[in-house]
Amino acid sequence: MRRVLVANRGEIALRLIRACHQAGFEAVAAYSNADKESRWVELADDAVYLGGSPAAKSYLNADAVLDAAKHSGADAIHPGYGFLAENAAFARRVAEAGLTFIGPPAEVIEKMGDKATARRMAAEAGVPVVPGSDPLSGAGAAEAAAREVGFPLLVKASAGGGGRGIRPVASAAELAEVVATARAEAAATFGDGTVYLERLIERARHIEVQVLADDHGNVTHAFERDCSVQRRRQKLIEEAPAPGLAPGLREAITEAAVRLSRHVGYRNAGTVEFLVAGDEFFFIEMNTRIQVEHPVSECVTGLDLVAEQLRIACGAPLSVTEAELTGAAVELRINAEDPALDFRPAPGELTRFDLPGGPGVRVDTGFAAGDQISPFYDSMIAKLICWGATRAEALSRARQALAELRIEGVASTAGLHAELLGELADGPVHTRWLEERQVNCSNS
Amino acid sequence: MRRVLVANRGEIALRLIRACHQAGFEAVAAYSNADKESRWVELADDAVYLGGSPAAKSYLNADAVLDAAKHSGADAIHPGYGFLAENAAFARRVAEAGLTFIGPPAEVIEKMGDKATARRMAAEAGVPVVPGSDPLSGAGAAEAAAREVGFPLLVKASAGGGGRGIRPVASAAELAEVVATARAEAAATFGDGTVYLERLIERARHIEVQVLADDHGNVTHAFERDCSVQRRRQKLIEEAPAPGLAPGLREAITEAAVRLSRHVGYRNAGTVEFLVAGDEFFFIEMNTRIQVEHPVSECVTGLDLVAEQLRIACGAPLSVTEAELTGAAVELRINAEDPALDFRPAPGELTRFDLPGGPGVRVDTGFAAGDQISPFYDSMIAKLICWGATRAEALSRARQALAELRIEGVASTAGLHAELLGELADGPVHTRWLEERQVNCSNS
Repeated sequence: MRRVLVANRGEIALRLIRACHQAGFEAVAAYSNADKESRWVELADDAVYLGGSPAAKSYLNADAVLDAAKHSGADAIHPGYGFLAENAAFARRVAEAGLTFIGPPAEVIEKMGDKATARRMAAEAGVPVVPGSDPLSGAGAAEAAAREVGFPLLVKASAGGGGRGIRPVASAAELAEVVATARAEAAATFGDGTVYLERLIERARHIEVQVLADDHGNVTHAFERDCSVQRRRQKLIEEAPAPGLAPGLREAITEAAVRLSRHVGYRNAGTVEFLVAGDEFFFIEMNTRIQVEHPVSECVTGLDLVAEQLRIACGAPLSVTEAELTGAAVELRINAEDPALDFRPAPGELTRFDLPGGPGVRVDTGFAAGDQISPFYDSMIAKLICWGATRAEALSRARQALAELRIEGVASTAGLHAELLGELADGPVHTRWLEERQVNCSNS
Repeated sequence: MRRVLVANRGEIALRLIRACHQAGFEAVAAYSNADKESRWVELADDAVYLGGSPAAKSYLNADAVLDAAKHSGADAIHPGYGFLAENAAFARRVAEAGLTFIGPPAEVIEKMGDKATARRMAAEAGVPVVPGSDPLSGAGAAEAAAREVGFPLLVKASAGGGGRGIRPVASAAELAEVVATARAEAAATFGDGTVYLERLIERARHIEVQVLADDHGNVTHAFERDCSVQRRRQKLIEEAPAPGLAPGLREAITEAAVRLSRHVGYRNAGTVEFLVAGDEFFFIEMNTRIQVEHPVSECVTGLDLVAEQLRIACGAPLSVTEAELTGAAVELRINAEDPALDFRPAPGELTRFDLPGGPGVRVDTGFAAGDQISPFYDSMIAKLICWGATRAEALSRARQALAELRIEGVASTAGLHAELLGELADGPVHTRWLEERQVNCSNS
């Protein structure tokens, strides 16, 4: 491995370029029309044009990405997150082209990408899963399955992921209609209408475990992240470690994640997601890629997770056998969205963009003042990650960092974060906390 | 303590404001005319005008600073570094006004501020000092003293510090003239013409130990920093820990620093500076304040040194009894100076100022794009601090961070740093390395 094609954009593209340079590799940026003058393209060693601004023409266009790799002389492709990162067919084509896919083997992506298969894998590995059904076969199957699972429940698309393709059902009366809608939606969105039922675990926390696995039989974890602050299943604030998690529960969850990863023959970095309610935990899905929120795990372990991905892809062993946990970290996603207008995306020019700094403050962004936040892609401007020797110190640094952050030209979630941080100091929240809070705030 | 007057400017002013906020104190900025629209003044809870732009009218004007504290209702003053930070008379006046001086007691500043007394204290504490003379009394005293000390030697002003008031003497022939010049200069600069002689330790490293001492008898250290990359005795790059330092030597030096601090009744944060040649080390001076390069120690220990200063000033015990060392960190001082023009200061408007980011990267600056780098004060724009699990990782992150840093509108030392970093990878250097290198570069 000598030259890596960075098949992504924004902050993660720059993150990957950084890691390549530090590992001694060249990094090639692959960019769309909208991104041709972007900061990360400038900072790469070489750059290849992919196609038009819509993701389907550029970042989601497997042909274009493979061509870019070949024409730029890259011998490896890092997909980042989103776009082609969890596309097993793409991973297979990369391997077939004689290039290294920096991620797990295609068959593992495939296995864990199908939610029903992933549930079965978890059960086989002795990892608790949310009580749920097999994929529903006929139209009448839902009713019988629902009786067994119990209400309230969720209808989930087998091919879904990242919080997409999920619909709640409160009672038997609405079941048939929701299942039909979910099927049609899944077929349209994912090209696969298969759905299944899952018990809705109420007031649960979203806790996920970062795992790392190399070609030498080493499978380990870099502790857990709490990502319970969500809006419409999109994470907004993430923390490591999960606040107030009993040490025994931490041990059980991380051990379960490692066990599952080993069971499925996992390679590279991945995340095993759980719902936690009381002292029970349930596997929900595995993300077979680097995650947006990986920096909080880096801050509390000192590991460079992308560097580990590159090591693993080169066939080298992990740099550590067991990560150590120091302090606490919180990540705030600063999105170009207007919380006052139901989080409406607010693309536009970043006319001013002054970053915070000082001890424990890390900023991951692909943008600088004067750049455009494009309407074509997700609205994230930056991730603000703050570490502290204690959780209180991390939160307090995050509050100060928000006060220092100055964004002009586009609306952002920065102001909302400032409100939320004060409330989070009280302790852990559940995944519906933010939505319930928003409702209360607009009623008052 | 409730409200702290920040009696400084630039990055250290913002650093102090951050620490105050995180400790739950209000921070009052005290600003000169040139600084009235600066970023740190905006981020403080309150702001008081000190006086005209020249430091003598504002940041060095003890009356104005004391008035500012009184009028703003501050009950404590943090002097930062430089300006009034090591002015014992000022510290005494702060205490007499019933305010807390966030630093050591005036008598300790006085004792360690006088280089001859400091040498005596070190000798009393059993800490090796550079072979040297007592303060020279009459005109004939120099010759006899020089015979004992040996050539080459340095003539040093007793009241000097921070690399100022020092002149080298190669042989007996030039002794009398240099001593006379040094006396006149010291009298003019420090108001005290006392000088003494010290052996010139050649090809030595500058290694300093960060100490912390509270009111409860705890005196500890946060390991050492190597600050050998200097130009005209001004530090340009600092590292923690000192690369390649034998563990036994590290233990001996840190233990000596703690012993000296205990001997002089030290309180608050301070730095004991040594010259290290081979396996010998010699005390040179103690700086009774927070230092510019404190962040590298923070990065490798996880401590917040300014937070510790605030704790100590409140009478609380240190947060740790013994710091732990993790990884390595390097700090690059990004100055508005033109290395191609003999480091001529380059004040002006920062028309563009894009900061680096990502894992292990910390930026401490008081400026944002659009701000003026004033000709009235020192030329530092920012400190770029990079941590890594290993020294190689820290240096590699620093190289990447420099590539990402974009400064327009003023000349800076950023380009020089990029050159130096590659060379530093080979291992430790001595304090004349940079100057010798510059000569070689301009000759070639």
